[in-house]
Amino acid sequence: MSASPSTGHSGQPNGTMMAAVLYAPRDLRIEQRPVPSPSQGEVLIRILSVGVCGSDVHYYEHGRIGDFVVRSPLVLGHESSGQIVAVGKGVSSARVGQRVAIEPGEPCRRCDQCRAGRYNLCPNIRFHGTPPVDGTLSEFVAVQSDLAYAVPDEISDNAAALLEPLSVGIWANRKAGVQVGTSVLIAGAGPIGLVTTKVAHAVGATRIVVTDVNPIRLSAALKSGATAIAVAGSDDVAGEFDGFIDCSGSSAAIAAGVRLVRPGGSVVLVGMGADELRLPLGVVQQRELVVTGTFRYANTWPTAIALVASGRVSLDDLVTGEYGLADVEQALTAGRDPQSVKAVVQPSRNQPA
Amino acid sequence: MSASPSTGHSGQPNGTMMAAVLYAPRDLRIEQRPVPSPSQGEVLIRILSVGVCGSDVHYYEHGRIGDFVVRSPLVLGHESSGQIVAVGKGVSSARVGQRVAIEPGEPCRRCDQCRAGRYNLCPNIRFHGTPPVDGTLSEFVAVQSDLAYAVPDEISDNAAALLEPLSVGIWANRKAGVQVGTSVLIAGAGPIGLVTTKVAHAVGATRIVVTDVNPIRLSAALKSGATAIAVAGSDDVAGEFDGFIDCSGSSAAIAAGVRLVRPGGSVVLVGMGADELRLPLGVVQQRELVVTGTFRYANTWPTAIALVASGRVSLDDLVTGEYGLADVEQALTAGRDPQSVKAVVQPSRNQPA
Amino acid sequence: MSASPSTGHSGQPNGTMMAAVLYAPRDLRIEQRPVPSPSQGEVLIRILSVGVCGSDVHYYEHGRIGDFVVRSPLVLGHESSGQIVAVGKGVSSARVGQRVAIEPGEPCRRCDQCRAGRYNLCPNIRFHGTPPVDGTLSEFVAVQSDLAYAVPDEISDNAAALLEPLSVGIWANRKAGVQVGTSVLIAGAGPIGLVTTKVAHAVGATRIVVTDVNPIRLSAALKSGATAIAVAGSDDVAGEFDGFIDCSGSSAAIAAGVRLVRPGGSVVLVGMGADELRLPLGVVQQRELVVTGTFRYANTWPTAIALVASGRVSLDDLVTGEYGLADVEQALTAGRDPQSVKAVVQPSRNQPA
Amino acid sequence: MSASPSTGHSGQPNGTMMAAVLYAPRDLRIEQRPVPSPSQGEVLIRILSVGVCGSDVHYYEHGRIGDFVVRSPLVLGHESSGQIVAVGKGVSSARVGQRVAIEPGEPCRRCDQCRAGRYNLCPNIRFHGTPPVDGTLSEFVAVQSDLAYAVPDEISDNAAALLEPLSVGIWANRKAGVQVGTSVLIAGAGPIGLVTTKVAHAVGATRIVVTDVNPIRLSAALKSGATAIAVAGSDDVAGEFDGFIDCSGSSAAIAAGVRLVRPGGSVVLVGMGADELRLPLGVVQQRELVVTGTFRYANTWPTAIALVASGRVSLDDLVTGEYGLADVEQALTAGRDPQSVKAVVQPSRNQPA
Repeated sequence: MSASPSTGHSGQPNGTMMAAVLYAPRDLRIEQRPVPSPSQGEVLIRILSVGVCGSDVHYYEHGRIGDFVVRSPLVLGHESSGQIVAVGKGVSSARVGQRVAIEPGEPCRRCDQCRAGRYNLCPNIRFHGTPPVDGTLSEFVAVQSDLAYAVPDEISDNAAALLEPLSVGIWANRKAGVQVGTSVLIAGAGPIGLVTTKVAHAVGATRIVVTDVNPIRLSAALKSGATAIAVAGSDDVAGEFDGFIDCSGSSAAIAAGVRLVRPGGSVVLVGMGADELRLPLGVVQQRELVVTGTFRYANTWPTAIALVASGRVSLDDLVTGEYGLADVEQALTAGRDPQSVKAVVQPSRNQPA
Repeated sequence: MSASPSTGHSGQPNGTMMAAVLYAPRDLRIEQRPVPSPSQGEVLIRILSVGVCGSDVHYYEHGRIGDFVVRSPLVLGHESSGQIVAVGKGVSSARVGQRVAIEPGEPCRRCDQCRAGRYNLCPNIRFHGTPPVDGTLSEFVAVQSDLAYAVPDEISDNAAALLEPLSVGIWANRKAGVQVGTSVLIAGAGPIGLVTTKVAHAVGATRIVVTDVNPIRLSAALKSGATAIAVAGSDDVAGEFDGFIDCSGSSAAIAAGVRLVRPGGSVVLVGMGADELRLPLGVVQQRELVVTGTFRYANTWPTAIALVASGRVSLDDLVTGEYGLADVEQALTAGRDPQSVKAVVQPSRNQPA
Repeated sequence: MSASPSTGHSGQPNGTMMAAVLYAPRDLRIEQRPVPSPSQGEVLIRILSVGVCGSDVHYYEHGRIGDFVVRSPLVLGHESSGQIVAVGKGVSSARVGQRVAIEPGEPCRRCDQCRAGRYNLCPNIRFHGTPPVDGTLSEFVAVQSDLAYAVPDEISDNAAALLEPLSVGIWANRKAGVQVGTSVLIAGAGPIGLVTTKVAHAVGATRIVVTDVNPIRLSAALKSGATAIAVAGSDDVAGEFDGFIDCSGSSAAIAAGVRLVRPGGSVVLVGMGADELRLPLGVVQQRELVVTGTFRYANTWPTAIALVASGRVSLDDLVTGEYGLADVEQALTAGRDPQSVKAVVQPSRNQPA
Repeated sequence: MSASPSTGHSGQPNGTMMAAVLYAPRDLRIEQRPVPSPSQGEVLIRILSVGVCGSDVHYYEHGRIGDFVVRSPLVLGHESSGQIVAVGKGVSSARVGQRVAIEPGEPCRRCDQCRAGRYNLCPNIRFHGTPPVDGTLSEFVAVQSDLAYAVPDEISDNAAALLEPLSVGIWANRKAGVQVGTSVLIAGAGPIGLVTTKVAHAVGATRIVVTDVNPIRLSAALKSGATAIAVAGSDDVAGEFDGFIDCSGSSAAIAAGVRLVRPGGSVVLVGMGADELRLPLGVVQQRELVVTGTFRYANTWPTAIALVASGRVSLDDLVTGEYGLADVEQALTAGRDPQSVKAVVQPSRNQPA
């Protein structure tokens, strides 16, 4: 928080805070905003770490992702951790002081999808950093209490933020039915491919082959639990897999991967790629493959916390750069370096005078 | 059986029988063959009715379906009923006289797929009327005992044969998760579309919309339980469906149908169509649609028998022509008449002198 | 509503209403209460029909069910239909005038169970007519908008109320995995046994055997879709069933039913019975039976509405008595007549002057 | 093999072998038997290691387990590994020399259970060492080819034999739905409790609490992956578990465990205990617990092999004693020592002259 804001009796900080606001493609401004007040059922969180996601970068560079268009100034950021500093009505004040990981989607909780437990498919969901909902690249954010999950000391601030991409990996593995003894092919070793690999390993998959074109990423995949790696497009991947998870968004990778899945196996498309998915129909039919896509996740934070707290999954090793709020644009462009995996922004750390 | 074959003490007919043998595209010959002897665990069946399937017609006209090529003379036919006339070692002689429906695929029973209950995906399966395995368009066939299911009197000979396409419909509905209260869109009202519609109705689906380009078929769909019909390609289908089952093989129908499925819904591809399946990737991902194909069926005959015996599904109304073995070619070409739905061949009925 | 209450511009009735309030066992008083106002997200409903459930009768007679004790005056009733007469903030005024069925449990929507789609297991659920939450045996009730389901004209007021017990039957069948071709044994032909039978029939079960000690109820079971009935305790039930649903709460019936389930089959306990469930352990283990109990239901109203609107399930035939609000005690004791199946109270019908 | 049998061209040993044959309770004799010949589809295996199971001990001491009675001389043993020395017709001779783990149940492969993939529930299954089917406590055994799984060098002879109890643990975990992030309570830390613990750990369960009365066993549980241990019957186990797996057969443990399972959780009964299972009915119903028993396993060997070969599960640490065939009775009584976990018999090791 800039300039030592005072804090009232309730723990609610008064005054203003700094936030990184996107006005247009490559027009990102650090500006003052009022600190939000937690409404009924909400908690106010001082943000400690925010992972930079490919979608943040895409909004920053293009001002839109598909139908989601940045029409008015928007705060980006949705991979977040922080510390509760105040609570709204109906929330126990015992929560003040808790370090938390933030689930960034606030579902309506009333539609058919919500009530069936598929709240990620809620048509009314409000998701951090997706127009027109502000994200977390600011000093404070107010969120509904149950979306702020207490994390134990074993989980660092950065790791708590990265429970969000980890959730994507958990969800992909669930959809693919990866479990103990499973063999799985994972295309793409970017951040999502790596967390997917880490989860597959933690779940007990005994054969995990990862493909990518980037040798640095392939090396990271090996450290993340891959039992074998291969350059995408090479003929080095053979045999049959119980499941194939695409984290590359590459049509070529998808086409190749599908053909390597055993009868009755599964194909899960995580990466956003072309508009059209082309599949070999005969393969899908004769093997009765089950093909699905993932859209975010549901009910994953407790699992994510357990995985990291127990040491089964590490996330800190994904962080290749830490930035203050003033340096958000550096963080958003860090990915141009092929060595970069995950940049994190720490909005509450001491700012240069 | 031609020329009154004598029958030995064991019930095994001696001598020869007539069979319809495909030598080459449009070269189908009715010729004498020795009556098979049932091996250990087999029963010998006098064939009473054989439904003509689109795949039979395709082999007849083109001599192949994809990689399956008729390289040596082949007996077609795999939708079959009959009466047990003799049994091999290890089979109770009490089965002699039973009227039976025949499941046409003989799995290896030992591979991973078989042992997991997915025997339709067995790579070693021997399937009637698929090269190089002879089918049932003959007077007698020997099959493994457990693949000959006793049928009660309520099921006619023709209906017993058509339990095979009914099984395709049962399997499609299972894969789509159709159940009581489900809304389902079915593209294509040919024989498979109609049995799929009948099963959806019997299963308790409360909204069943069927599309086709042929008004005669659409009318049959209405009689089969559709709650609404629409001309394929029109804009008359609206709303969201829990599931979409394609029985048309039409790329346009698939593309249109996928967009009408609700988030979390399912897409099942039954019809064989183009080599490539094109899907709107964003729709599959954002709705987390589950897309799969079907390949035949597994464990469906008991359900099929129960459905027909209980009157929940009728099959006799699908039969639009009955033929003797001598008229197999007429049966194979009957489908050129747009009024035709299903031709059946009755190899054991009295032949003209 | 007593004494023609006036209705303001918003449709909100002013003044007071009559309600049936339980003060102590057998001390039920019809008294005036203020008409509730719909809060944000709520609708105000004029109650048209309320089915009397065994639990209402139990509270009336004993003042408690297990740990749920009537400690302060309580309005009973949770099987309800009505008409929306006013809406709270955030609800479209287009809903005013809709005839609706009411789902009686208001879950917290935030706990792990709610978010996983198992909101019936929400520890914070507020359920109509269960201490300390008032039920619907009154002229008006305010409920959350999404728990008031619009019903089409094909569904009568009484049937709309009875979608609640129908939901119990739907849930039991889902838990038992009853589907097309299934064989199921149902113990108990009281109201819950009958709706369970109706759903099993609608779902496509092809063998439905119902047991009870009451021949009148057994006769009703036959009309509800049973394919066979048997006196409970007789040896007339034989063969194997895919599933067994107990709606009797009888230890003897449970013990007998479990032994009739095939390997891999399911046992679902709907009826509340003794404190202790005794099962033959060897049978459960050697057949790997799946045993579970049901607690209310989740996500069943859309299915229930579809079933009744489509004519697949009838509910009006269950109603054996209709009562005004003044005669609630008669309705609560109607079940002493062995001919009685379901009494309904219609709080809004013309009261005697 | 006693007295250097000669081996024919086909690899088939001629002559006789030694086997441990149970004639009556505590009347076990080491005697000569002819070496079996592999029938069509079978392989002949020289037995390398046989784990002693509690059921072997029970037969040895009592001559029966429930309805299974030793009526004629019986070879015990069903946890086995060996080396293929000859093959029957239809089996590739390339298998000769393979080291294999043996799945001890030979299902009929034709009944409804087999075809549905639940072959462990096959009523016709022939299971090693269960009357009247001879087991593997002999020098050679012939088994169907697909039930002899090749094992890699990473798996020792003893560990290959112990893939059988590991399969019990895999099956129990599958039935309980244990997966990454799951919390599970396991009662009983005998050999089955330990392998169940090992699998829960390998599967990614993040909270694994094991109870037993034996501190030595509890210590072994800790080494097997338990995150906490507690003396059975103490009040030290608190909180809610996603699943409870009973490997103790103790009524008290079951009663206590069931009450610790969260709503919607699962209870799996692995241990054989009393004839009657007593459960708190209200708990089962109000939490909708899913209770089931396990009977052996199906489709587990590939997973078991992958787990051990990859180092995720160790089995050698369970072995507390190795015995020659001549010392089978010592092996069968080794369990009286509280330090004993698993005795193995190695029938083919050099016998004293």
